[in-house]
This record gives sequence, C-alpha cells and structure tokens, in this order.
Amino acid sequence: MASAELLLVSQAMAHDPQHPSPPDLGPDPVLAGFRKSIDNIDAALIHMLAERFRITQAVGEYKAKATLPPADPDREARQIARLRKLSEEADLDPEFSEKFLRFIIDEVIRHHERAAAG
Amino acid sequence: MASAELLLVSQAMAHDPQHPSPPDLGPDPVLAGFRKSIDNIDAALIHMLAERFRITQAVGEYKAKATLPPADPDREARQIARLRKLSEEADLDPEFSEKFLRFIIDEVIRHHERAAAG
Repeated sequence: MASAELLLVSQAMAHDPQHPSPPDLGPDPVLAGFRKSIDNIDAALIHMLAERFRITQAVGEYKAKATLPPADPDREARQIARLRKLSEEADLDPEFSEKFLRFIIDEVIRHHERAAAG
Repeated sequence: MASAELLLVSQAMAHDPQHPSPPDLGPDPVLAGFRKSIDNIDAALIHMLAERFRITQAVGEYKAKATLPPADPDREARQIARLRKLSEEADLDPEFSEKFLRFIIDEVIRHHERAAAG
C-alpha cells in the first residue's frame, strides 16, 4: 500500500466508532467530559475552602478577643463523628473524611500560628 | 455580700453586654454562629468530595477499558497551575491548594490500588 493510501485509511479509521482513535491521535471526548466535571468540582472545593478559612480566621480573632481557649477537643470530636456519618450516607470512606478534617484543622492551626507570629 | 445577692449580680452581669458571660456560663452565640457556617461548609465539602471520587472511579474504569495509561503527568501539572490561580483569586494560599490536590490525588491512587487488588 502506498503511503498516501495508508494515510487515508488511517484517517478513515480515526473517525470510525468501531476503531476508536489511539490516545496520540487527539483528545478522548469521554475522558475530556469526566475531566471537565472534576475541574468544576475542584473549583467549587477551592472556593468552599477559601470561605472556610475566612471563617476560621474570624473565629481565631474572636476567641483571642473574648479570651476563649484556641482549641476545643469536644467540638473536634463532635465534628469528626458528624463528618463520618455524612460520609457514610454519601458513600465516601469515613476514614478519609476524618483524615480530611485533620488535614484542614492542621492548616487552620498553621494559619493561627502565622497570625500570632506576624 | 450574701450568696443570694452574689448570684443575682452574677446573673445580671451574664446578660449585660458590657460584661460578656465567661465561657462556662453557656454557649457563646457568636461562636455558635461561626460553627454553624463551618458545619454547613464541611457538609458541602464532603458531598463534593464524594461526587469527585465517583467520577475518578468512573475515569479509572474507563481508562482500564480504553487501555489508556492510568497516570497523566501533563494533566496533573495543568490542574495544579489552574488551582493555584483560582486560589490566588479567592485569597487562599496557593501552596495549600497544591497540597490539597496532592492529598486528593493520593486518595484517588489508593482507591485505584484497592480496586485493582479487589
């Protein structure tokens, strides 16, 4: 087969649903759709987290002014129990939700330490 | 001062905005309001994450079926750059957003490993 013919066959196969394009022939539309959803969710997560840190910053300032203790282990235990329950309902690993809350609280503590040092 | 008088003075002070209640006299309404907002945001975050993991699970299954490689370093670099930019706009530490995406991706990898082992 001449190389021009080979090119035509390869172009025809690229548009044939029975012969889906290999990944190097262009973006996969199914994968691109999934990724669009992931990107939308990530943008929502970032904005939710930004708002959460705005509130925890206000909490830190308020606790300092009202001379309330910075940490509250009872509150933290209630938060963990609640998020584990919500996770189960949403079919998310409850262990992950606890790890996630710990990850966020560690960042809040870092913010408070930075604010105290600044 | 008699103990009954002391009790009355203490009750009056508890309702005087010039003399805010010490923390052991009952829940602080300002703090309770902040915490309600944090709890609402956390519930939203958990549900967003549950949906994100549903999609990455579908991506894993699709990639396996379409014999696409499981990891895509270029995609990951684009995601990090995008989230850092979004974070800056939302007044969130861009370093944190990168750490957050890494935390989520590590969990996705754990899910895929578990699925492959099961």
